Amino acid sequence: MAKNDINRGSPDLEYSDEEVLNYHENNYPGHGKIEIIPKTPVISQRDLTLAYSPGVAVPCLEIQKKPIDLYKYTNIANTIAVISNGTRILGLGDIGIAGYPVMEGKSILFKALANVDAFPLILSNYDPDSFISTVKSISQNFAGINLEDIQKPDCFLIERTLEKELDIPVFHDDQWGTAVVTLAGILNSLKLVDKNIDDVNIVMNGSGASGIAITHMLLDAGVKGTNIQTVDRIGTIYSGRGAMDMYKEELSTRINPKKLSLSLPEAVEGADILIGASSPGAFTKDMIKSMQNDAIVFAIANPDPEILPKHAIAAGATVVGTGRSDFPNQINNVLGFPGIFRGLLDVRAKKVTNNMKVAAANAIASMTPEEDLTPDNIITSPTDPQLMATEAAAVAKAAIKDNVARKLISDEKIYELTLKRIEYYQKIFAPTVKSRKIN
Amino acid sequence: MAKNDINRGSPDLEYSDEEVLNYHENNYPGHGKIEIIPKTPVISQRDLTLAYSPGVAVPCLEIQKKPIDLYKYTNIANTIAVISNGTRILGLGDIGIAGYPVMEGKSILFKALANVDAFPLILSNYDPDSFISTVKSISQNFAGINLEDIQKPDCFLIERTLEKELDIPVFHDDQWGTAVVTLAGILNSLKLVDKNIDDVNIVMNGSGASGIAITHMLLDAGVKGTNIQTVDRIGTIYSGRGAMDMYKEELSTRINPKKLSLSLPEAVEGADILIGASSPGAFTKDMIKSMQNDAIVFAIANPDPEILPKHAIAAGATVVGTGRSDFPNQINNVLGFPGIFRGLLDVRAKKVTNNMKVAAANAIASMTPEEDLTPDNIITSPTDPQLMATEAAAVAKAAIKDNVARKLISDEKIYELTLKRIEYYQKIFAPTVKSRKIN
Repeated sequence: MAKNDINRGSPDLEYSDEEVLNYHENNYPGHGKIEIIPKTPVISQRDLTLAYSPGVAVPCLEIQKKPIDLYKYTNIANTIAVISNGTRILGLGDIGIAGYPVMEGKSILFKALANVDAFPLILSNYDPDSFISTVKSISQNFAGINLEDIQKPDCFLIERTLEKELDIPVFHDDQWGTAVVTLAGILNSLKLVDKNIDDVNIVMNGSGASGIAITHMLLDAGVKGTNIQTVDRIGTIYSGRGAMDMYKEELSTRINPKKLSLSLPEAVEGADILIGASSPGAFTKDMIKSMQNDAIVFAIANPDPEILPKHAIAAGATVVGTGRSDFPNQINNVLGFPGIFRGLLDVRAKKVTNNMKVAAANAIASMTPEEDLTPDNIITSPTDPQLMATEAAAVAKAAIKDNVARKLISDEKIYELTLKRIEYYQKIFAPTVKSRKIN
Repeated sequence: MAKNDINRGSPDLEYSDEEVLNYHENNYPGHGKIEIIPKTPVISQRDLTLAYSPGVAVPCLEIQKKPIDLYKYTNIANTIAVISNGTRILGLGDIGIAGYPVMEGKSILFKALANVDAFPLILSNYDPDSFISTVKSISQNFAGINLEDIQKPDCFLIERTLEKELDIPVFHDDQWGTAVVTLAGILNSLKLVDKNIDDVNIVMNGSGASGIAITHMLLDAGVKGTNIQTVDRIGTIYSGRGAMDMYKEELSTRINPKKLSLSLPEAVEGADILIGASSPGAFTKDMIKSMQNDAIVFAIANPDPEILPKHAIAAGATVVGTGRSDFPNQINNVLGFPGIFRGLLDVRAKKVTNNMKVAAANAIASMTPEEDLTPDNIITSPTDPQLMATEAAAVAKAAIKDNVARKLISDEKIYELTLKRIEYYQKIFAPTVKSRKIN
């Protein structure tokens, strides 16, 4: 059997191309990974009368009188869109609608892990303006928007414009999902090596969508601007350096006030933490050797990390995280987005604030108790229902505190509800799904 | 309990407002009528590896190499959009997103009756150009578009432009669904009264979206242009009459070649068939009395018909159809759209032709054998799985004949597959759905 050449897993996670294709092709009835089903029985003439004509006029009139009841009589309150234009799919680049399996995959993770109904859409809009215009035209059908795999710098403009103009949360997962989960990993790594976030030195290599977002998140979480260097192809970023887009300019006002102009190896020397959201092989053993004791290295380029964990460890690093499931400490967005959106929907949030993102990171970190932390175990795995419940509760609580919640509900209640919903999914659907596989 | 004032049913179909609202509000988890679920199990780390990262790159690359495989590795082949802008919701008018329960209702009927995945969308685009532009931007995610409840004349421009510019079928159900089911009822009524379609005289009262579409369908099915009069507020339509939009002008080239200028009562005198897609009370007993023997009257204005069946019968009509479930002979779009789209999807049709619509009407009519036809039983009910299978097969066969099918598959196979799919839905989902109602 042919093996594909992407990110190969540990033995029990190995798969052949045929197996993955079969998994995507043969799901009765039809193909692919999602389907849209009724929540109510639709069998008798009476069901038709209540669900459709003429009964359906009653909720329509109620909603017309009281628009917020849209969230009471339809599934919109629990529905988000996973929207891309396919311009930056995984490591595959600009492949447009061919990236649809990624969006469908995300959709089923939302449902299985947090009981969020997520509809996948790849728009044919390549320019940001028409993309924004399409999203605005469909947004009233959703309670949240997860932006996905959109090329830089369009993703920034799209996210900011939609955030400003829509009254539902807009979350670009490649930026903020990655940043939230990275921060969670950093927080636990610091506990393990007994260092404080407010006095560690950090180098962030890469100033793409996730590199910039990670830097902002670290600053929001307490890292000092003097203690973090963000590096692009030219070197460290600082205000007035030149050759920077507006998003780097903006970031440069928060970091590197001394305007140190350093190369990557120069910046890394003496640092406590090195994070890469850049390209395979960007980190050398010499760089790791030049870091402080108990160095923390997150090499999250996908599918191939900036340095292999065994090489980083050999060069003296204490904790190494990557984006891969076949190495310890996977920095995996799946830890973030389902629980974050669960919390957003439960309080009918109008937007996602920085505090809410930091709260999500703390919630993820909290799932691994300090006594369980080891260099190979600094972050939990996504299949734990308590993770999603804890995260949803934390996000909801922060939303209420930041005054962006339309519905007030206690974090305990959200925790309890989320657990129930996930158990419910696993109980009702997982067996159904299993029983209807045709082999 | 308060009773609403819309289209009240026979005793077993009666309902209170509270009951309908409760039906829409309390569907665990959350509200409304649809949800989006995985077709594949998503529980273990291995499931995540195959469904999402890194496995998902394999089908993406296959689709990139061979775009038609989008239909093989995703659910797009079985997914349509039910799209409106809410400008003409049922009898409720322009209520925008408040019409969402109607779209959700349509979505669950598609799934339960024909196993089509239908996603409901009410666009915030009121002008046809921006509506068209939004639909084009999202169309690649769907294998068909069901347009719904869009005001006239925008609906015509929208449908025609999208039909021309998209390579997937676009079907405006208020026009063609109504026309298909009306034609089916007319065909069976004619069998009952032993008259031939090519020599009956017909009056179509109403020249809105459905009135114009019904007239075109009748002509496509064999009615002579000399034998049909379409009537608007001014009177009969004929070429050069004036005060007509381009859609009436276009229709006028197919009918009334003698340019008879008649009022409704004048036109009805001596007619065999009178159809109303107009307004409550538009037909009088005197009009019915002036028709030929064995008069056929379809009074399909909703919720209140042009004339009540008992009054039409008292005035001498033999067959009376309405849009209501509480009278005999319901002319109900639900008889049409699920089976039509099932057929379209199974051959991956590029468009819907007139022949395909006529084939659907014949299929619906064929479900009531001649020996079972009575004045109170001229058309079948939508909960019969054989109806949807028969219709899907007929539409698919016509698509292949008209050379708009991308996939060749026998009508017997489609019939068999559709039956299987519907049985499958009823077996797998209906009990699940029932068991999770919380009361």
